[in-house]
Amino acid sequence: MRHYYSYNEYLSDCKKLTALIEGKFDAIIAIARGGMTLAHMLGEYYEIREVYSINTIGYEDNHKLGKTVIFNIPDIKSAERILVVDDIVDSGDTMKLVIETLSAEYPDSSFSTASLFYKEIAVMKPDWYVHIADKWIDFFWSEDLRVKS
Amino acid sequence: MRHYYSYNEYLSDCKKLTALIEGKFDAIIAIARGGMTLAHMLGEYYEIREVYSINTIGYEDNHKLGKTVIFNIPDIKSAERILVVDDIVDSGDTMKLVIETLSAEYPDSSFSTASLFYKEIAVMKPDWYVHIADKWIDFFWSEDLRVKS
Repeated sequence: MRHYYSYNEYLSDCKKLTALIEGKFDAIIAIARGGMTLAHMLGEYYEIREVYSINTIGYEDNHKLGKTVIFNIPDIKSAERILVVDDIVDSGDTMKLVIETLSAEYPDSSFSTASLFYKEIAVMKPDWYVHIADKWIDFFWSEDLRVKS
Repeated sequence: MRHYYSYNEYLSDCKKLTALIEGKFDAIIAIARGGMTLAHMLGEYYEIREVYSINTIGYEDNHKLGKTVIFNIPDIKSAERILVVDDIVDSGDTMKLVIETLSAEYPDSSFSTASLFYKEIAVMKPDWYVHIADKWIDFFWSEDLRVKS
């Protein structure tokens, strides 16, 4: 089962997400690529100019266990309250490792998490999310440019 | 004069932009915040997982001349051909400084530039752009979440 997730559905969900999100933030960090569109829009909405991204690479080792490496940890300047966003928290491994890495790098900052989708099997539940995902999501940012018109 | 730039117009322009862009790239760098949505979508389209962002801060000095500082220069790993994107090349100062900074940091890489809009007064013309801007653009990522529904 696949679900095509249109821009209009995304926009409606962004409104729901901002209604859920509590607190104020000094910076937003997108987990690239998936969180970049959301981080951009939330940065505009909250008038936060400090919108950063962080990168991950997944490696397969010999035992077929995925190993994720985090890089491009942003310089968050003096930001204390950080919102970390992604499109979907799937296994949760990436979000968990990102938060652990950021917390170790910036022990005096606090990190909250938000996503559009969250799978219940994930090892980590975001602080705020809109939907529990039970099928594959085809996000508009992956699909719309491929459609012939 | 202001122009509301909708998602549908953006999508149409992304198709035009990808038709203009020549060459292959190993990585895409978004100038945050403005270039993040575009970089995300182009990364998906070109199947480039290495999508990064770079940050700028503008300072006013005593003489009211803006001074722009670049930070969070991404680790681009082994990427040789880089596409740097922004929503609009306005004065061109930011894009010019970003390219100078990246070229100094990575002298063995080549940097190309793309934007949705370009102003003819800019000090630098992107390699590829869709529109010459002659009015203020209200991008959907700045506007749509503010609309009451």
